[in-house]
Amino acid sequence: MKKITRWIYPYILLALPLFICSCNETNNHSKNEAAVATDTLPSWNNTPAKKAIIAFVEQVTSANSPDFVLPAERIATFDNDGTLWAEQPLAFQLFFIFDRIKALAPQHPEWKTKEPFASLLRGDNNSAIPASINSFAEMGELILVTQAGISPEEYEQIVADWITIARHPVTGKPLTSMVYQPMLELLDYLRANDFKIYIVSGGSCDFMRAFAEKTYGIVPEQVIGSSLKTRFEMNNERAVITNTEEFSAIITGKAKPLAIQSVIGRRPIASFGNSDNDLPMMQWTASGKGAHLCLYVHHTDSVREYAYDRVSADPFDKGLDEAMAKGWTIADMKTDWKTVYPPEKK
Amino acid sequence: MKKITRWIYPYILLALPLFICSCNETNNHSKNEAAVATDTLPSWNNTPAKKAIIAFVEQVTSANSPDFVLPAERIATFDNDGTLWAEQPLAFQLFFIFDRIKALAPQHPEWKTKEPFASLLRGDNNSAIPASINSFAEMGELILVTQAGISPEEYEQIVADWITIARHPVTGKPLTSMVYQPMLELLDYLRANDFKIYIVSGGSCDFMRAFAEKTYGIVPEQVIGSSLKTRFEMNNERAVITNTEEFSAIITGKAKPLAIQSVIGRRPIASFGNSDNDLPMMQWTASGKGAHLCLYVHHTDSVREYAYDRVSADPFDKGLDEAMAKGWTIADMKTDWKTVYPPEKK
Repeated sequence: MKKITRWIYPYILLALPLFICSCNETNNHSKNEAAVATDTLPSWNNTPAKKAIIAFVEQVTSANSPDFVLPAERIATFDNDGTLWAEQPLAFQLFFIFDRIKALAPQHPEWKTKEPFASLLRGDNNSAIPASINSFAEMGELILVTQAGISPEEYEQIVADWITIARHPVTGKPLTSMVYQPMLELLDYLRANDFKIYIVSGGSCDFMRAFAEKTYGIVPEQVIGSSLKTRFEMNNERAVITNTEEFSAIITGKAKPLAIQSVIGRRPIASFGNSDNDLPMMQWTASGKGAHLCLYVHHTDSVREYAYDRVSADPFDKGLDEAMAKGWTIADMKTDWKTVYPPEKK
Repeated sequence: MKKITRWIYPYILLALPLFICSCNETNNHSKNEAAVATDTLPSWNNTPAKKAIIAFVEQVTSANSPDFVLPAERIATFDNDGTLWAEQPLAFQLFFIFDRIKALAPQHPEWKTKEPFASLLRGDNNSAIPASINSFAEMGELILVTQAGISPEEYEQIVADWITIARHPVTGKPLTSMVYQPMLELLDYLRANDFKIYIVSGGSCDFMRAFAEKTYGIVPEQVIGSSLKTRFEMNNERAVITNTEEFSAIITGKAKPLAIQSVIGRRPIASFGNSDNDLPMMQWTASGKGAHLCLYVHHTDSVREYAYDRVSADPFDKGLDEAMAKGWTIADMKTDWKTVYPPEKK
């Protein structure tokens, strides 16, 4: 026995640091630091935007930094349309709404003569909102037709089925392939540094939940979006939740920080957007006590994507002025992004 | 060099499994299984309730079980008052409200003659609601006085400061020491098995957030509760969120499953409550497709805690009938719990 014990000592001594390393948080940090050192954000050019992102992440994650933030407090909030994926010529949820209304039309012969449905059903493409739909109320009616009266689970399934076959009206590509590769890398980089990532967007919450986990790795409970009020009832001993015909929340502008406070209850230390609708979220983030990162995606690339800002359906005007005045980070798509979309799958 | 290489082989061979073990998920599972095997739920007697909990967790976490649930889908929802901590003689938030109104009284001389404040200020103990407060509207007015017009962050700080010095009017103990030890062990057990735990409770969301992380290990974004509407504004270049005087949501009864769907977007596979107000949450959980656990805490212990059910401020009546009819798990405090409260700190 004694002999065996003696032989085993060097093995234990060698194995010990590995074992300790595997059982505490140091290991995660080492892995993260390695990730940073090798190929962080490969689709970002080595311009000030990328440097600002990395400097911020190092600032809040280095244990000896005066701006160190505990992992549980590393909340990052992202707008979706125009920030994580494209939004031209229309926000992609509109393509769903148009397709869905066309699919439901046979059950609604009255739509042939009733606006806003009639113009929509006559239209032969999906790349513009029919001129007859000129108010939010009319758009709201279209949203309700696709979403009210069914359960959130049914609605999510309809969206999930649709999004696997839907194609962009201009590029012909699957919509989920029109996510921004640099932003996917940013999500991964933040996650590797123990950030908890939320989407906070004007799109329907359940529309985004239908693809956010598969597309971005963002679970349903980390998606905040617009929603309808719901109703609970027992139906033959089975609990059923149904979307009503009444809007509950439209998560744009000032509603973004309010939803963040309500649902998350912690102030983000990093926020990402692309329009004036994201400005209150940026302002809320920037008004926190410690270090913060406010990053605006600026659509400047008419060749690889689209170029638009101050004049658009969802303008980036006051936000652009404030970002420049405050020195927030602006990701200029044309100069800061090496690639826009992920490489195509063969 | 050759000699060194030869000597190092046995070390590498021995260290390898440890290293592999530390770098993939198997390690977590092994740790969990070890936890289960040793002292899972030590404050629970070895009665059917404990067996049902363990059987359920094994059913949904064993990789070869037909009822296996992916870790990301292991959502568990807990009521707070009467489920995670005591709620007698009154829900503990009421003690806060009474103390807060007394603290604010010098700034409100008009309260001396204005109900419901006058009776409350005359009262010499905290263990009963003054008879003059006999409607939800009057109670609502008291809640607003403590919460409206300040920021959620200020309110949380006031609660956090108060709860460190508040004492229970009957036991004289700190309120956060009147959490249920068996339920703390249950939270740990579920977390060790990759469950994501939410509080879903009628108490004010920000009241619970002020202590839930320290007391239960539940982070703010996993606390769902009643709330006021909020307002966002810029004040001298600083973003400010303020609680208004309007209620936004009261998270009791049917509002519980609706809030779960809205905030989490996944159906819980395990729910825990103690009153009829938790019944819709149980029904929603039980109506899911796969395996589920619905557990009711039944207050049957007049010696160590309190005994109440069908007749109380927050009755456990329809819920008790349905739990018995459906064969849900009932944790009988008197017979199933070895201890009620955590051991006192010296």
